[in-house]
Amino acid sequence: MKKVLVLGAGMVARPLVRYLLDRGFGVTQGDLAPERASAMIDGHPHGRALAVDVGDAAAVASLVAEHDLTVSLAPPPFHPAVARLCVEAGRHMATASYVAPEMAALDAAARARGVLLLNEIGVDPGIDHMSAMRVIDGVRARGGRLLSFRSYCGGLPAPEANDNPFGYKFSWAPRGVLMAGRNDAHYLSHGALVTVPGARLFRDMHLLHVEGAGDFEAYPNRDSISYIDIYGLQGIRTMFRGTLRNPGWCDCLHHYGRLGLLDLEPADLAGATAADLLRRLAGGAPGEAADAAVARRLGLCRDALPVANLRWLGLCDETPLARERGCPLDVLGDAMLAKLVYAPGERDMIAMKHEFVAALPDGGREMITSSLVAFGEPGGDSAMARTVSLPLAVAVRLTLEGVIAARGVARPVTADFYGPILEELANLGIVCREETVWTERDSGHQGGE
Amino acid sequence: MKKVLVLGAGMVARPLVRYLLDRGFGVTQGDLAPERASAMIDGHPHGRALAVDVGDAAAVASLVAEHDLTVSLAPPPFHPAVARLCVEAGRHMATASYVAPEMAALDAAARARGVLLLNEIGVDPGIDHMSAMRVIDGVRARGGRLLSFRSYCGGLPAPEANDNPFGYKFSWAPRGVLMAGRNDAHYLSHGALVTVPGARLFRDMHLLHVEGAGDFEAYPNRDSISYIDIYGLQGIRTMFRGTLRNPGWCDCLHHYGRLGLLDLEPADLAGATAADLLRRLAGGAPGEAADAAVARRLGLCRDALPVANLRWLGLCDETPLARERGCPLDVLGDAMLAKLVYAPGERDMIAMKHEFVAALPDGGREMITSSLVAFGEPGGDSAMARTVSLPLAVAVRLTLEGVIAARGVARPVTADFYGPILEELANLGIVCREETVWTERDSGHQGGE
Repeated sequence: MKKVLVLGAGMVARPLVRYLLDRGFGVTQGDLAPERASAMIDGHPHGRALAVDVGDAAAVASLVAEHDLTVSLAPPPFHPAVARLCVEAGRHMATASYVAPEMAALDAAARARGVLLLNEIGVDPGIDHMSAMRVIDGVRARGGRLLSFRSYCGGLPAPEANDNPFGYKFSWAPRGVLMAGRNDAHYLSHGALVTVPGARLFRDMHLLHVEGAGDFEAYPNRDSISYIDIYGLQGIRTMFRGTLRNPGWCDCLHHYGRLGLLDLEPADLAGATAADLLRRLAGGAPGEAADAAVARRLGLCRDALPVANLRWLGLCDETPLARERGCPLDVLGDAMLAKLVYAPGERDMIAMKHEFVAALPDGGREMITSSLVAFGEPGGDSAMARTVSLPLAVAVRLTLEGVIAARGVARPVTADFYGPILEELANLGIVCREETVWTERDSGHQGGE
Repeated sequence: MKKVLVLGAGMVARPLVRYLLDRGFGVTQGDLAPERASAMIDGHPHGRALAVDVGDAAAVASLVAEHDLTVSLAPPPFHPAVARLCVEAGRHMATASYVAPEMAALDAAARARGVLLLNEIGVDPGIDHMSAMRVIDGVRARGGRLLSFRSYCGGLPAPEANDNPFGYKFSWAPRGVLMAGRNDAHYLSHGALVTVPGARLFRDMHLLHVEGAGDFEAYPNRDSISYIDIYGLQGIRTMFRGTLRNPGWCDCLHHYGRLGLLDLEPADLAGATAADLLRRLAGGAPGEAADAAVARRLGLCRDALPVANLRWLGLCDETPLARERGCPLDVLGDAMLAKLVYAPGERDMIAMKHEFVAALPDGGREMITSSLVAFGEPGGDSAMARTVSLPLAVAVRLTLEGVIAARGVARPVTADFYGPILEELANLGIVCREETVWTERDSGHQGGE
């Protein structure tokens, strides 16, 4: 029996552990909290739950050596150290996280030991890579080349659970989501490099329809340019990656940024109410209604959505803040986490869409889309957990069964990965649907562009 | 003294009449309501106010013959008949309206009589034509050609007057604005013809920043394709014309369309309250709160902007409707007109922006923008009135002074029009600012597109 070590029993581990146990693999689930590890194993005869400190190199080294493959669901900074131990032990490893430079540096050593260090095999990154490369390789096989690639992804409440005026719910701490609203973004648009400063991020927005999911606001997701190399798309003219949210989100976040609610400067909040903080940020007078001060500062009316949503969050109330010290972003995060939550039985949703424009050897052009819409199971695994951890689980199985033979530091961007993995994900109900939206056979009249 | 006949003393006439009187022209202002005509002339010694029924051909014919040029500000269906009288009398004519087929048919006859029938010389159409063609001709003079032209225009409250949650105010009956929300739209995007059905119009939205005015939602404005011929841009790959509104507008109008609030089917409203109508459209139960029924029907929460804005309009109230019979669009229009109005002293704003991408003969590319932001005068003429009627006024003066020598049915798309007219508009504070946003000298690495 092949044995898999899973480090970290967080929000997304369960579907992976169940998949591997159900298919006859032995699974050791490690976590700092042994009761969390036990809950994952749930008494399965081929499972074992252990208290493991992923920072304890000696303990991890001996566990790694006892298993055929290690999955690290630990926080990303731990991955390179775990990977080094895997290489030393001659064992494979898989993560859903981005390839850090320290990970990339292990490529030669891993190849020399016949070890696969597979990364970015979750949903985003992960399924995005695989579904994109299946289309891109298909275009190339027909002699075509990519002119434009726009890719969108969002983790959102399912439509029936979309019952708050932000159109969003958090599965965990909102800090990461709000921090992402401060980033600059870079992408390529029709041959031009576009840099969007953080303060303009939510104003570089357009709407996108995803079949079976709805209409979403899309705004640029950090550095899209690096994907040109990852996908081998040198010469492409448009390369854009975007984040999806429900309508209204971008206008709110834009104005919250303007107001200073995304600032990271810690401030003394002892004795302060939520309304005090808003008045302070808005330059309001003592005792002035916080929403009035905010509206005036932002040049909005009190009934405009960004102001109304601050009221809805309770941030205009004269109630004490939970923190004695903190930055505005954390105060906003606290208020959001208190109200933007999934109720028991509510489903989340993952919506992903790629839009490709390809030039064909006959001079024609084609737009192809690839879409994935996945819903959580009511009362069961979330769509986020399933789409992050099932690609990992499938890749682990296929690696241990010898179907995947790649070695070294890898991303699932080649057919040896995406072929069998996407096929098995479809069996599990995670289906990336491709469609040719339009074909332009005669483009001669459109000049030389 | 050259004499000008102005038919119609509506919302935009005043700046035209004042401009011509101030520059030594005689002006006869006709209107069905003689007191409206008198208010325009305001006792000026070279002015005359008359009661005129523009449908009375004999009366109009004799007035036309007495004047050197007739400006028709009457409803557009009257223009062709007035134009025929002008041709018969050998007199020039100008309008701010689109060229109807009946108008176009008069071209040969007008040329034969040496008459100019100038149309589309307001703001949109009008200033848009002129500011666009100045850039397009400039690109051609450098040996370049246009790859992309996106043009946007909106008449909106000035930022400090933007104090309602629709971000919009009406200067006149809202029917036209709401009817425009039902139209299909057609445009060209990167070589592909895009047709947007009316029901998806407000979902084909993106944001646009206009320097000095703000950030706006842009959605497609009817048939952009016809502008390819008007501007001589055959072979262009992107041709888009859009309408500008403040953030939130499109999401509201999209959902009002879904709900049936833009429907034109007349219904019996006798004894009905606003809430009754919403319940009827939403399929709500008798006595159910109208906003709850609407939210359920639309799959939104009660605090979402489209629902909140119906509440704000009073349409969820159990108050009787003003109409005994009417269509939902008119009920929505009534409610909007009651609340989305300019207070005395508040300014409106016209925001217009063109974005051009040109291919240059050295293989480089350039993005050029042309922007106009005009504000109303507090307590005086609105930006809408000034930007519609001052181009007309300037064109009238230049025609009567012989500077404009064109004849036949014309639009101001050639340098003999836009050169002197844009120059004089700039003197009047209506300035179209051009900017080269980026220049791409070496595009060799981007492949053959």
